[in-house]
Amino acid sequence: MSDTHVLDPNHDMSDPAEARRAFRTGAFTGNTAGIAPGYTQGNLAILPADLALDFMRFCQRNPKPCPIIGVSETGDPFLPTLGRDIDIRCDVPSYNVYRNGELDDEVTDISDLWRDDFVTFVLGCSYSFEQALVDGGVALRHWEEDLTVSMYCTNIETEVSGLFSGGTVVSMRPLTARNAIRAVEITSRFPHTHGSPVHLGDPSQIGIADISKPDWGDAQRIEADEIPVFWACGVTPQNAVRQAKPEICITHKPGSMLVTDLPSAFDSRLED
Amino acid sequence: MSDTHVLDPNHDMSDPAEARRAFRTGAFTGNTAGIAPGYTQGNLAILPADLALDFMRFCQRNPKPCPIIGVSETGDPFLPTLGRDIDIRCDVPSYNVYRNGELDDEVTDISDLWRDDFVTFVLGCSYSFEQALVDGGVALRHWEEDLTVSMYCTNIETEVSGLFSGGTVVSMRPLTARNAIRAVEITSRFPHTHGSPVHLGDPSQIGIADISKPDWGDAQRIEADEIPVFWACGVTPQNAVRQAKPEICITHKPGSMLVTDLPSAFDSRLED
Repeated sequence: MSDTHVLDPNHDMSDPAEARRAFRTGAFTGNTAGIAPGYTQGNLAILPADLALDFMRFCQRNPKPCPIIGVSETGDPFLPTLGRDIDIRCDVPSYNVYRNGELDDEVTDISDLWRDDFVTFVLGCSYSFEQALVDGGVALRHWEEDLTVSMYCTNIETEVSGLFSGGTVVSMRPLTARNAIRAVEITSRFPHTHGSPVHLGDPSQIGIADISKPDWGDAQRIEADEIPVFWACGVTPQNAVRQAKPEICITHKPGSMLVTDLPSAFDSRLED
Repeated sequence: MSDTHVLDPNHDMSDPAEARRAFRTGAFTGNTAGIAPGYTQGNLAILPADLALDFMRFCQRNPKPCPIIGVSETGDPFLPTLGRDIDIRCDVPSYNVYRNGELDDEVTDISDLWRDDFVTFVLGCSYSFEQALVDGGVALRHWEEDLTVSMYCTNIETEVSGLFSGGTVVSMRPLTARNAIRAVEITSRFPHTHGSPVHLGDPSQIGIADISKPDWGDAQRIEADEIPVFWACGVTPQNAVRQAKPEICITHKPGSMLVTDLPSAFDSRLED
Protein backbone atom coordinates (compact mmCIF):
# COMPACT_ATOMS: atom_id res chain seq x y z
CA MET A 1 0.00 0.00 0.00
CA SER A 2 1.33 3.39 -0.98
CA ASP A 3 2.54 5.69 1.76
CA THR A 4 2.76 8.79 -0.41
CA HIS A 5 -0.35 10.36 1.11
CA VAL A 6 1.19 10.46 4.59
CA LEU A 7 3.67 13.01 3.21
CA ASP A 8 0.93 15.65 2.82
CA PRO A 9 2.86 18.76 3.96
CA ASN A 10 -0.15 20.63 5.40
CA HIS A 11 -1.67 17.95 7.59
CA ASP A 12 -0.22 15.49 10.08
CA MET A 13 -1.94 12.42 8.63
CA SER A 14 -0.84 10.30 11.59
CA ASP A 15 -3.40 12.15 13.73
CA PRO A 16 -7.04 11.13 13.10
CA ALA A 17 -8.53 14.60 13.70
CA GLU A 18 -5.94 16.27 11.45
CA ALA A 19 -6.52 13.65 8.77
CA ARG A 20 -10.28 14.29 8.90
CA ARG A 21 -9.55 18.01 8.48
CA ALA A 22 -7.73 17.20 5.24
CA PHE A 23 -10.74 15.15 4.09
CA ARG A 24 -13.18 17.90 5.14
CA THR A 25 -11.47 20.58 3.10
CA GLY A 26 -11.14 18.29 0.10
CA ALA A 27 -7.32 18.40 0.35
CA PHE A 28 -7.31 14.60 0.41
CA THR A 29 -9.89 12.38 -1.34
CA GLY A 30 -8.06 9.02 -1.65
CA ASN A 31 -7.43 5.70 0.06
CA THR A 32 -7.08 5.81 3.84
CA ALA A 33 -4.81 2.75 4.19
CA GLY A 34 -1.80 3.80 6.26
CA ILE A 35 -3.44 6.99 7.55
CA ALA A 36 -3.57 7.49 11.35
CA PRO A 37 -2.02 4.11 12.16
CA GLY A 38 -3.19 2.78 15.51
CA TYR A 39 -6.71 4.18 15.07
CA THR A 40 -9.82 2.32 13.96
CA GLN A 41 -11.23 2.92 10.50
CA GLY A 42 -14.82 2.14 9.63
CA ASN A 43 -17.17 1.31 6.77
CA LEU A 44 -19.99 3.80 6.28
CA ALA A 45 -23.70 3.28 5.50
CA ILE A 46 -26.18 6.15 5.70
CA LEU A 47 -29.87 5.23 5.35
CA PRO A 48 -33.27 6.88 5.86
CA ALA A 49 -34.75 6.25 9.33
CA ASP A 50 -37.59 4.07 8.00
CA LEU A 51 -34.99 1.43 7.06
CA ALA A 52 -32.62 1.98 10.00
CA LEU A 53 -34.18 -0.49 12.44
CA ASP A 54 -34.21 -3.27 9.80
CA PHE A 55 -30.59 -2.54 8.88
CA MET A 56 -29.51 -2.47 12.53
CA ARG A 57 -31.26 -5.83 13.08
CA PHE A 58 -29.47 -7.17 9.98
CA CYS A 59 -26.13 -6.15 11.50
CA GLN A 60 -27.03 -7.62 14.93
CA ARG A 61 -27.87 -10.95 13.27
CA ASN A 62 -24.74 -10.97 11.12
CA PRO A 63 -22.04 -9.67 13.46
CA LYS A 64 -19.08 -11.10 11.55
CA PRO A 65 -19.64 -9.29 8.24
CA CYS A 66 -21.47 -6.33 9.85
CA PRO A 67 -19.83 -5.39 13.17
CA ILE A 68 -21.45 -2.11 14.29
CA ILE A 69 -19.06 0.30 16.00
CA GLY A 70 -21.24 3.42 15.96
CA VAL A 71 -24.74 4.69 15.09
CA SER A 72 -25.82 8.34 14.92
CA GLU A 73 -28.97 9.89 16.29
CA THR A 74 -31.59 10.31 13.55
CA GLY A 75 -30.80 13.43 11.52
CA ASP A 76 -27.63 14.21 13.47
CA PRO A 77 -24.52 14.27 11.24
CA PHE A 78 -22.14 14.00 14.22
CA LEU A 79 -20.78 10.81 15.80
CA PRO A 80 -19.61 11.71 19.33
CA THR A 81 -19.12 8.06 20.34
CA LEU A 82 -16.49 7.63 17.60
CA GLY A 83 -14.53 10.86 17.81
CA ARG A 84 -14.36 14.55 18.48
CA ASP A 85 -16.24 16.76 16.00
CA ILE A 86 -16.77 14.07 13.34
CA ASP A 87 -19.11 15.60 10.73
CA ILE A 88 -20.09 12.64 8.57
CA ARG A 89 -21.23 15.01 5.77
CA CYS A 90 -17.65 15.96 4.89
CA ASP A 91 -15.15 14.02 7.05
CA VAL A 92 -14.85 10.96 4.78
CA PRO A 93 -12.53 11.42 1.75
CA SER A 94 -14.98 10.10 -0.87
CA TYR A 95 -18.57 8.79 -0.90
CA ASN A 96 -20.68 6.55 -3.12
CA VAL A 97 -24.31 7.56 -3.52
CA TYR A 98 -26.67 4.67 -4.32
CA ARG A 99 -30.22 5.29 -5.51
CA ASN A 100 -32.64 2.35 -5.71
CA GLY A 101 -29.71 -0.02 -5.28
CA GLU A 102 -27.61 1.39 -8.14
CA LEU A 103 -24.43 3.46 -7.84
CA ASP A 104 -25.57 6.91 -8.95
CA ASP A 105 -22.76 9.27 -8.01
CA GLU A 106 -19.31 9.60 -6.44
CA VAL A 107 -18.79 12.75 -4.38
CA THR A 108 -16.39 14.14 -1.76
CA ASP A 109 -19.03 15.98 0.31
CA ILE A 110 -22.68 15.09 1.02
CA SER A 111 -23.76 18.28 2.81
CA ASP A 112 -26.24 19.10 0.05
CA LEU A 113 -27.71 15.57 0.22
CA TRP A 114 -28.13 15.47 4.01
CA ARG A 115 -31.66 14.90 5.34
CA ASP A 116 -33.30 15.14 8.76
CA ASP A 117 -34.23 11.44 8.59
CA PHE A 118 -30.73 10.08 7.86
CA VAL A 119 -29.13 7.58 10.25
CA THR A 120 -25.39 6.89 10.00
CA PHE A 121 -24.00 3.41 10.63
CA VAL A 122 -20.27 2.78 11.04
CA LEU A 123 -19.05 -0.81 10.78
CA GLY A 124 -15.62 -2.18 11.67
CA CYS A 125 -13.15 -2.87 8.86
CA SER A 126 -10.22 -5.22 8.50
CA TYR A 127 -7.42 -2.64 8.63
CA SER A 128 -7.18 -3.03 12.42
CA PHE A 129 -6.86 -6.79 12.44
CA GLU A 130 -4.44 -6.76 9.50
CA GLN A 131 -2.07 -4.54 11.50
CA ALA A 132 -2.40 -6.95 14.44
CA LEU A 133 -1.61 -9.89 12.14
CA VAL A 134 1.51 -8.22 10.77
CA ASP A 135 2.57 -7.19 14.30
CA GLY A 136 2.05 -10.84 15.30
CA GLY A 137 4.43 -12.07 12.61
CA VAL A 138 1.81 -13.09 10.04
CA ALA A 139 3.00 -11.56 6.76
CA LEU A 140 0.21 -10.57 4.35
CA ARG A 141 0.81 -11.03 0.63
CA HIS A 142 -1.43 -8.15 -0.44
CA TRP A 143 0.50 -5.80 1.84
CA GLU A 144 3.86 -7.05 0.58
CA GLU A 145 2.84 -6.84 -3.07
CA ASP A 146 0.76 -3.65 -2.80
CA LEU A 147 -2.48 -5.34 -3.91
CA THR A 148 -6.09 -4.93 -2.86
CA VAL A 149 -7.18 -8.00 -0.88
CA SER A 150 -9.16 -10.58 -2.93
CA MET A 151 -12.91 -10.63 -2.20
CA TYR A 152 -15.48 -13.24 -3.25
CA CYS A 153 -19.24 -13.82 -3.21
CA THR A 154 -20.06 -17.03 -1.31
CA ASN A 155 -23.00 -19.32 -0.64
CA ILE A 156 -22.86 -18.52 3.10
CA GLU A 157 -26.30 -16.95 3.49
CA THR A 158 -26.80 -14.04 5.88
CA GLU A 159 -29.67 -13.98 8.39
CA VAL A 160 -32.45 -11.96 6.74
CA SER A 161 -33.87 -8.77 8.29
CA GLY A 162 -36.71 -7.02 6.50
CA LEU A 163 -35.50 -6.23 2.96
CA PHE A 164 -31.85 -6.93 3.83
CA SER A 165 -30.47 -10.33 2.80
CA GLY A 166 -27.95 -12.01 0.48
CA GLY A 167 -24.74 -14.03 0.55
CA THR A 168 -21.77 -13.25 2.74
CA VAL A 169 -18.83 -11.63 0.95
CA VAL A 170 -15.42 -12.82 2.16
CA SER A 171 -11.86 -11.54 1.90
CA MET A 172 -9.05 -14.08 1.37
CA ARG A 173 -5.47 -14.16 2.62
CA PRO A 174 -3.13 -17.03 1.61
CA LEU A 175 -1.26 -18.35 4.68
CA THR A 176 0.90 -21.28 5.73
CA ALA A 177 -0.77 -23.72 8.14
CA ARG A 178 1.26 -22.31 11.01
CA ASN A 179 0.27 -18.74 10.17
CA ALA A 180 -3.36 -19.76 9.58
CA ILE A 181 -3.52 -21.06 13.15
CA ARG A 182 -1.84 -17.92 14.48
CA ALA A 183 -4.24 -15.77 12.41
CA VAL A 184 -7.28 -17.50 13.95
CA GLU A 185 -5.85 -16.82 17.41
CA ILE A 186 -5.17 -13.16 16.69
CA THR A 187 -8.34 -12.24 14.79
CA SER A 188 -10.63 -13.99 17.29
CA ARG A 189 -9.64 -11.15 19.63
CA PHE A 190 -11.14 -8.63 17.17
CA PRO A 191 -14.88 -9.46 17.04
CA HIS A 192 -15.63 -5.89 15.95
CA THR A 193 -13.42 -6.11 12.89
CA HIS A 194 -14.87 -9.35 11.47
CA GLY A 195 -13.36 -11.67 14.11
CA SER A 196 -12.02 -15.13 13.33
CA PRO A 197 -12.18 -16.63 9.81
CA VAL A 198 -15.41 -18.09 8.44
CA HIS A 199 -13.57 -20.76 6.41
CA LEU A 200 -10.15 -22.09 5.46
CA GLY A 201 -8.99 -24.48 2.75
CA ASP A 202 -11.25 -25.74 -0.07
CA PRO A 203 -12.92 -22.69 -1.67
CA SER A 204 -15.65 -24.81 -3.30
CA GLN A 205 -17.11 -25.59 0.13
CA ILE A 206 -18.31 -21.99 0.36
CA GLY A 207 -19.33 -21.70 -3.29
CA ILE A 208 -16.19 -20.16 -4.76
CA ALA A 209 -15.66 -21.82 -8.16
CA ASP A 210 -12.35 -20.22 -9.16
CA ILE A 211 -10.05 -18.77 -6.49
CA SER A 212 -8.02 -17.02 -9.20
CA LYS A 213 -11.01 -14.85 -10.15
CA PRO A 214 -12.04 -12.65 -7.21
CA ASP A 215 -15.28 -10.69 -7.50
CA TRP A 216 -13.56 -7.59 -6.08
CA GLY A 217 -9.91 -6.69 -5.49
CA ASP A 218 -6.84 -8.37 -6.97
CA ALA A 219 -6.02 -12.06 -7.44
CA GLN A 220 -3.26 -13.29 -5.12
CA ARG A 221 -0.64 -16.02 -5.66
CA ILE A 222 -1.14 -19.06 -3.39
CA GLU A 223 2.09 -20.98 -2.76
CA ALA A 224 2.16 -24.80 -2.61
CA ASP A 225 2.52 -24.81 1.20
CA GLU A 226 -0.28 -22.27 1.70
CA ILE A 227 -4.04 -22.49 2.14
CA PRO A 228 -6.56 -19.73 1.49
CA VAL A 229 -8.07 -18.32 4.71
CA PHE A 230 -11.42 -16.50 4.44
CA TRP A 231 -12.85 -13.75 6.64
CA ALA A 232 -16.30 -12.16 6.52
CA CYS A 233 -15.99 -8.85 4.68
CA GLY A 234 -17.47 -5.37 5.00
CA VAL A 235 -18.71 -5.52 1.40
CA THR A 236 -21.48 -7.85 2.66
CA PRO A 237 -23.70 -5.03 4.02
CA GLN A 238 -23.21 -3.04 0.80
CA ASN A 239 -24.43 -6.12 -1.06
CA ALA A 240 -27.44 -6.34 1.26
CA VAL A 241 -28.17 -2.65 0.68
CA ARG A 242 -28.03 -3.15 -3.07
CA GLN A 243 -30.55 -5.99 -2.73
CA ALA A 244 -32.85 -3.90 -0.52
CA LYS A 245 -32.85 -1.11 -3.14
CA PRO A 246 -33.50 1.80 -0.76
CA GLU A 247 -34.46 5.05 -2.44
CA ILE A 248 -31.10 6.42 -1.23
CA CYS A 249 -28.07 5.01 0.58
CA ILE A 250 -24.71 6.71 0.97
CA THR A 251 -21.54 4.71 1.68
CA HIS A 252 -17.84 5.47 1.76
CA LYS A 253 -16.03 4.86 -1.53
CA PRO A 254 -14.28 1.49 -1.05
CA GLY A 255 -10.85 2.01 0.51
CA SER A 256 -11.71 5.56 1.53
CA MET A 257 -12.90 4.96 5.08
CA LEU A 258 -14.05 6.94 8.11
CA VAL A 259 -10.99 7.47 10.35
CA THR A 260 -12.14 7.46 14.00
CA ASP A 261 -10.50 8.46 17.28
CA LEU A 262 -10.89 4.92 18.67
CA PRO A 263 -7.65 3.04 19.24
CA SER A 264 -7.21 0.08 16.86
CA ALA A 265 -7.39 -2.30 19.79
CA PHE A 266 -10.88 -0.84 20.18
CA ASP A 267 -12.46 -4.13 20.94
CA SER A 268 -11.49 -2.90 24.38
CA ARG A 269 -14.65 -0.77 23.92
CA LEU A 270 -16.66 -3.83 24.77
CA GLU A 271 -14.71 -3.74 28.00
CA ASP A 272 -15.18 -0.03 28.75
CA MET B 1 -30.03 -21.35 44.38
CA SER B 2 -32.80 -23.85 44.85
CA ASP B 3 -32.87 -26.88 42.58
CA THR B 4 -36.35 -28.02 43.52
CA HIS B 5 -37.88 -26.82 40.26
CA VAL B 6 -35.68 -29.13 38.20
CA LEU B 7 -37.56 -32.01 39.78
CA ASP B 8 -40.75 -31.10 37.88
CA PRO B 9 -41.99 -34.60 37.00
CA ASN B 10 -43.70 -33.66 33.72
CA HIS B 11 -40.92 -31.73 32.03
CA ASP B 12 -37.21 -32.34 31.56
CA MET B 13 -36.10 -28.93 32.79
CA SER B 14 -32.53 -29.59 31.66
CA ASP B 15 -33.73 -29.20 28.04
CA PRO B 16 -34.42 -25.59 26.99
CA ALA B 17 -37.35 -26.41 24.65
CA GLU B 18 -38.99 -28.66 27.28
CA ALA B 19 -38.49 -26.00 29.93
CA ARG B 20 -40.15 -23.39 27.71
CA ARG B 21 -43.07 -25.77 27.25
CA ALA B 22 -43.53 -25.82 31.03
CA PHE B 23 -43.47 -22.01 31.05
CA ARG B 24 -45.89 -21.83 28.09
CA THR B 25 -48.52 -23.97 29.78
CA GLY B 26 -48.13 -22.12 33.05
CA ALA B 27 -46.86 -25.28 34.79
CA PHE B 28 -43.81 -23.29 35.92
CA THR B 29 -43.81 -19.55 36.66
CA GLY B 30 -40.73 -19.13 38.92
CA ASN B 31 -37.01 -18.41 38.91
CA THR B 32 -35.02 -19.92 36.03
CA ALA B 33 -31.68 -20.21 37.87
CA GLY B 34 -30.45 -23.77 37.43
CA ILE B 35 -32.84 -24.55 34.56
CA ALA B 36 -31.31 -25.89 31.31
CA PRO B 37 -27.71 -25.61 32.52
CA GLY B 38 -25.31 -24.99 29.66
CA TYR B 39 -27.80 -22.81 27.76
CA THR B 40 -27.91 -19.02 27.61
CA GLN B 41 -30.64 -17.15 29.47
CA GLY B 42 -31.63 -13.63 28.56
CA ASN B 43 -33.21 -10.44 29.90
CA LEU B 44 -36.36 -9.35 28.06
CA ALA B 45 -37.56 -5.91 26.95
CA ILE B 46 -40.53 -5.51 24.60
CA LEU B 47 -41.17 -2.00 23.27
CA PRO B 48 -43.32 -0.32 20.61
CA ALA B 49 -41.50 0.12 17.28
CA ASP B 50 -41.39 3.92 17.54
CA LEU B 51 -38.93 3.53 20.47
CA ALA B 52 -37.09 0.47 19.15
CA LEU B 53 -34.36 2.25 17.18
CA ASP B 54 -33.55 4.55 20.11
CA PHE B 55 -33.44 1.59 22.50
CA MET B 56 -31.24 -0.44 20.12
CA ARG B 57 -28.86 2.54 19.83
CA PHE B 58 -28.84 2.79 23.65
CA CYS B 59 -27.75 -0.86 23.83
CA GLN B 60 -25.12 -0.44 21.08
CA ARG B 61 -23.61 2.49 23.01
CA ASN B 62 -23.71 0.68 26.37
CA PRO B 63 -22.65 -2.86 25.48
CA LYS B 64 -21.55 -3.88 28.97
CA PRO B 65 -24.87 -3.36 30.77
CA CYS B 66 -26.97 -3.96 27.60
CA PRO B 67 -25.47 -6.78 25.50
CA ILE B 68 -28.01 -7.55 22.75
CA ILE B 69 -28.24 -11.24 21.86
CA GLY B 70 -31.44 -11.14 19.81
CA VAL B 71 -34.05 -8.78 18.30
CA SER B 72 -37.36 -9.79 16.75
CA GLU B 73 -38.92 -8.51 13.57
CA THR B 74 -41.51 -5.81 14.26
CA GLY B 75 -44.79 -7.45 15.33
CA ASP B 76 -43.35 -10.98 15.15
CA PRO B 77 -43.55 -12.81 18.51
CA PHE B 78 -41.02 -15.47 17.43
CA LEU B 79 -37.23 -15.35 17.87
CA PRO B 80 -35.74 -17.84 15.37
CA THR B 81 -32.16 -16.62 15.96
CA LEU B 82 -32.38 -17.64 19.64
CA GLY B 83 -34.21 -20.95 19.45
CA ARG B 84 -36.74 -23.22 17.86
CA ASP B 85 -40.38 -22.14 18.19
CA ILE B 86 -39.79 -19.49 20.88
CA ASP B 87 -43.11 -17.63 21.29
CA ILE B 88 -42.21 -14.65 23.43
CA ARG B 89 -45.91 -14.13 24.34
CA CYS B 90 -45.95 -17.20 26.59
CA ASP B 91 -42.48 -18.82 26.76
CA VAL B 92 -41.15 -16.77 29.69
CA PRO B 93 -42.31 -17.91 33.15
CA SER B 94 -43.43 -14.45 34.39
CA TYR B 95 -43.59 -10.94 32.98
CA ASN B 96 -43.61 -7.40 34.37
CA VAL B 97 -45.81 -4.90 32.51
CA TYR B 98 -44.70 -1.27 32.81
CA ARG B 99 -46.96 1.58 31.76
CA ASN B 100 -45.52 5.11 31.58
CA GLY B 101 -42.47 3.90 33.49
CA GLU B 102 -44.38 2.37 36.41
CA LEU B 103 -44.84 -1.33 37.17
CA ASP B 104 -48.52 -1.89 36.39
CA ASP B 105 -48.98 -5.66 36.36
CA GLU B 106 -47.31 -9.05 36.77
CA VAL B 107 -48.56 -11.76 34.42
CA THR B 108 -47.54 -15.20 33.13
CA ASP B 109 -48.77 -14.70 29.55
CA ILE B 110 -48.87 -11.56 27.37
CA SER B 111 -50.83 -12.92 24.39
CA ASP B 112 -53.72 -10.54 25.07
CA LEU B 113 -51.32 -7.57 25.27
CA TRP B 114 -49.42 -8.34 22.06
CA ARG B 115 -49.40 -5.65 19.36
CA ASP B 116 -48.35 -5.51 15.71
CA ASP B 117 -45.83 -2.78 16.50
CA PHE B 118 -44.00 -4.62 19.32
CA VAL B 119 -40.26 -5.32 19.00
CA THR B 120 -38.65 -7.86 21.35
CA PHE B 121 -35.10 -7.32 22.63
CA VAL B 122 -33.19 -10.07 24.44
CA LEU B 123 -30.07 -9.07 26.39
CA GLY B 124 -27.41 -11.35 27.86
CA CYS B 125 -27.51 -12.07 31.59
CA SER B 126 -24.89 -13.04 34.11
CA TYR B 127 -25.96 -16.66 34.68
CA SER B 128 -23.59 -17.81 31.88
CA PHE B 129 -20.51 -16.10 33.20
CA GLU B 130 -21.27 -17.14 36.79
CA GLN B 131 -21.22 -20.79 35.72
CA ALA B 132 -17.90 -20.17 33.96
CA LEU B 133 -16.51 -18.55 37.13
CA VAL B 134 -17.53 -21.49 39.30
CA ASP B 135 -16.16 -23.94 36.70
CA GLY B 136 -12.93 -21.91 36.78
CA GLY B 137 -12.59 -22.33 40.54
CA VAL B 138 -13.97 -18.93 41.57
CA ALA B 139 -16.50 -19.67 44.32
CA LEU B 140 -19.44 -17.23 44.50
CA ARG B 141 -20.80 -16.33 47.92
CA HIS B 142 -24.38 -15.74 46.72
CA TRP B 143 -24.41 -19.22 45.16
CA GLU B 144 -22.99 -20.84 48.28
CA GLU B 145 -25.39 -19.00 50.61
CA ASP B 146 -28.45 -19.13 48.30
CA LEU B 147 -28.74 -15.33 48.07
CA THR B 148 -29.69 -13.00 45.24
CA VAL B 149 -26.59 -11.13 44.06
CA SER B 150 -26.26 -7.57 45.47
CA MET B 151 -27.05 -4.80 42.99
CA TYR B 152 -26.36 -1.05 43.31
CA CYS B 153 -27.09 2.21 41.52
CA THR B 154 -23.83 3.96 40.58
CA ASN B 155 -22.63 7.30 39.25
CA ILE B 156 -21.28 5.62 36.08
CA GLU B 157 -23.42 7.41 33.50
CA THR B 158 -24.65 5.54 30.42
CA GLU B 159 -24.33 7.01 26.93
CA VAL B 160 -27.68 8.66 26.18
CA SER B 161 -29.86 7.63 23.21
CA GLY B 162 -33.09 9.54 22.65
CA LEU B 163 -35.15 9.24 25.84
CA PHE B 164 -32.97 6.44 27.25
CA SER B 165 -30.36 7.45 29.85
CA GLY B 166 -29.42 7.06 33.51
CA GLY B 167 -26.75 5.55 35.74
CA THR B 168 -25.26 2.09 35.28
CA VAL B 169 -26.53 -0.54 37.72
CA VAL B 170 -23.86 -2.99 38.89
CA SER B 171 -23.84 -6.40 40.53
CA MET B 172 -21.21 -7.13 43.20
CA ARG B 173 -19.34 -10.32 44.06
CA PRO B 174 -16.83 -10.36 46.98
CA LEU B 175 -13.59 -12.08 45.91
CA THR B 176 -10.02 -12.55 47.11
CA ALA B 177 -7.39 -10.69 45.07
CA ARG B 178 -6.36 -13.94 43.40
CA ASN B 179 -9.94 -14.77 42.44
CA ALA B 180 -10.61 -11.18 41.36
CA ILE B 181 -7.77 -11.46 38.84
CA ARG B 182 -9.02 -14.84 37.65
CA ALA B 183 -12.57 -13.44 37.40
CA VAL B 184 -11.39 -10.60 35.14
CA GLU B 185 -9.67 -13.13 32.90
CA ILE B 186 -12.71 -15.39 32.68
CA THR B 187 -15.45 -12.77 32.28
CA SER B 188 -13.53 -10.81 29.66
CA ARG B 189 -14.23 -13.79 27.41
CA PHE B 190 -17.99 -13.17 27.80
CA PRO B 191 -18.62 -9.74 26.25
CA HIS B 192 -22.25 -10.69 25.61
CA THR B 193 -22.95 -11.39 29.27
CA HIS B 194 -21.59 -8.11 30.67
CA GLY B 195 -17.89 -8.89 30.06
CA SER B 196 -15.13 -7.90 32.45
CA PRO B 197 -15.82 -5.90 35.64
CA VAL B 198 -16.43 -2.14 35.52
CA HIS B 199 -14.78 -1.58 38.92
CA LEU B 200 -13.12 -3.30 41.86
CA GLY B 201 -12.26 -2.14 45.36
CA ASP B 202 -13.44 1.18 46.85
CA PRO B 203 -17.24 1.39 46.32
CA SER B 204 -17.29 5.18 46.86
CA GLN B 205 -15.36 5.68 43.62
CA ILE B 206 -18.49 4.68 41.70
CA GLY B 207 -20.94 6.46 43.98
CA ILE B 208 -21.90 3.61 46.31
CA ALA B 209 -22.18 5.12 49.81
CA ASP B 210 -22.88 1.94 51.80
CA ILE B 211 -21.92 -1.47 50.41
CA SER B 212 -24.03 -3.16 53.08
CA LYS B 213 -27.21 -1.64 51.63
CA PRO B 214 -27.77 -2.88 48.06
CA ASP B 215 -30.52 -1.24 45.99
CA TRP B 216 -31.69 -4.69 44.78
CA GLY B 217 -30.89 -8.24 45.91
CA ASP B 218 -29.34 -9.34 49.19
CA ALA B 219 -26.40 -7.90 51.16
CA GLN B 220 -23.33 -10.17 51.11
CA ARG B 221 -20.61 -10.63 53.74
CA ILE B 222 -17.18 -9.33 52.61
CA GLU B 223 -14.29 -11.07 54.38
CA ALA B 224 -11.16 -9.18 55.50
CA ASP B 225 -9.06 -10.60 52.67
CA GLU B 226 -11.71 -9.88 50.00
CA ILE B 227 -12.53 -6.92 47.78
CA PRO B 228 -15.87 -6.17 46.15
CA VAL B 229 -15.81 -6.70 42.35
CA PHE B 230 -18.46 -4.91 40.28
CA TRP B 231 -19.96 -5.92 36.93
CA ALA B 232 -22.41 -3.97 34.75
CA CYS B 233 -25.88 -5.40 35.34
CA GLY B 234 -28.95 -6.13 33.24
CA VAL B 235 -31.09 -3.98 35.52
CA THR B 236 -29.50 -0.94 33.81
CA PRO B 237 -31.75 -1.07 30.71
CA GLN B 238 -34.83 -1.51 32.93
CA ASN B 239 -33.74 1.64 34.73
CA ALA B 240 -33.35 3.44 31.41
CA VAL B 241 -36.80 2.24 30.34
CA ARG B 242 -38.30 3.56 33.56
CA GLN B 243 -36.68 6.93 32.87
CA ALA B 244 -37.96 6.98 29.28
CA LYS B 245 -41.51 6.31 30.51
CA PRO B 246 -42.79 4.57 27.37
CA GLU B 247 -46.56 4.14 27.19
CA ILE B 248 -45.92 0.38 27.53
CA CYS B 249 -42.88 -1.84 28.08
CA ILE B 250 -42.95 -5.53 28.97
CA THR B 251 -39.96 -7.20 30.66
CA HIS B 252 -39.33 -10.58 32.27
CA LYS B 253 -39.96 -10.67 36.00
CA PRO B 254 -36.46 -10.43 37.56
CA GLY B 255 -34.94 -13.90 37.91
CA SER B 256 -37.51 -15.39 35.56
CA MET B 257 -35.59 -15.24 32.31
CA LEU B 258 -35.98 -16.30 28.69
CA VAL B 259 -34.23 -19.68 28.29
CA THR B 260 -32.70 -19.89 24.79
CA ASP B 261 -31.27 -22.73 22.70
CA LEU B 262 -27.86 -20.98 22.49
CA PRO B 263 -25.03 -22.71 24.31
CA SER B 264 -23.79 -20.80 27.35
CA ALA B 265 -20.45 -20.25 25.68
CA PHE B 266 -22.52 -18.40 23.10
CA ASP B 267 -20.04 -15.63 22.72
CA SER B 268 -18.87 -18.09 20.13
CA ARG B 269 -21.86 -16.64 18.21
CA LEU B 270 -19.68 -13.69 17.39
CA GLU B 271 -17.45 -16.29 15.81
CA ASP B 272 -20.17 -18.18 13.93
